[in-house]
Amino acid sequence: MTTEELLANVRVIEDFPIKGIHFQDVTTLFANPECLKEITNRFVNIYKDKGITKVVGLEARGFVLGAILAEKLGAGFVPARKKGKLPGDTISEAYNLEYGFDTIEIHVGAITPDDVVLVHDDLLATGGTLAAAVHLVEKFNPKKIYTSTIIDLTACPRKASFPKDLEIESLLKIDVA
Amino acid sequence: MTTEELLANVRVIEDFPIKGIHFQDVTTLFANPECLKEITNRFVNIYKDKGITKVVGLEARGFVLGAILAEKLGAGFVPARKKGKLPGDTISEAYNLEYGFDTIEIHVGAITPDDVVLVHDDLLATGGTLAAAVHLVEKFNPKKIYTSTIIDLTACPRKASFPKDLEIESLLKIDVA
Repeated sequence: MTTEELLANVRVIEDFPIKGIHFQDVTTLFANPECLKEITNRFVNIYKDKGITKVVGLEARGFVLGAILAEKLGAGFVPARKKGKLPGDTISEAYNLEYGFDTIEIHVGAITPDDVVLVHDDLLATGGTLAAAVHLVEKFNPKKIYTSTIIDLTACPRKASFPKDLEIESLLKIDVA
Repeated sequence: MTTEELLANVRVIEDFPIKGIHFQDVTTLFANPECLKEITNRFVNIYKDKGITKVVGLEARGFVLGAILAEKLGAGFVPARKKGKLPGDTISEAYNLEYGFDTIEIHVGAITPDDVVLVHDDLLATGGTLAAAVHLVEKFNPKKIYTSTIIDLTACPRKASFPKDLEIESLLKIDVA
């Protein structure tokens, strides 16, 4: 399956969640068995020799490929969730939104200094959430952090907080903001 | 890996989300690579010859094994989400909570009459959400619906809405409410 075929299975929804946004809907990729296999195989090929021991998936769409990759790579899956959703003690990271701020959390002990971590989300836009997730994972002091997204909105300006030296792999580059 | 070893990796958190609840935390199962593989393999053995073409995962913890099983079974993954989270047109199902009600949604067209569907959530307690998800999937008129959860809280009374004839497989039976 080609990259163009994968791109053709991403559905664009206009004005979601707010007016002016061309929302890139990955659920149509997930619902297509061939697309799901192809995305999985491409990521597995990238990460299979990296010694990854934990995959952190960002709530909620990042859970989908995050979980699949954890199982395929023989790693554990660790959810990064919005404040108050995880039942145990957590370590948290606050990050700025356009108005106000949000907080993501990971369970205490879910990542250790022996871990090699892949942080996964479905889509990279401003990178605010992904940057916060990476900063949060850094607090656990793992050996190494990789990051991946299915889609990279290449025309979207990154937040100042987005780490310049991030090792990030995105399968589908889409030239819209 | 034995069932007892899996059970030993489920963490119990007291008084979450409210006082008196012995919350069964599956994140400790997900974070352990051997447990994640074992749960996956047990479900794959149950469903590999059923011709499943779509796995519906319930937001958000049901996305984890739901996505893994979709990929393993060569099926598509379909998220069932709370109201307003899915970007496209949806079909919805409202269901009663103790006070008030909640609504879950699936994208129009995500399931067709040709599909054989596995509905997955992490945990079965009163079964209110799972019953709503099954009723929602029925609106798409698929060939057949199977259901699975990792944990079944066997002492928890089921809601009246819970279908008596549901074909449900739960790996870990836990005798608490």
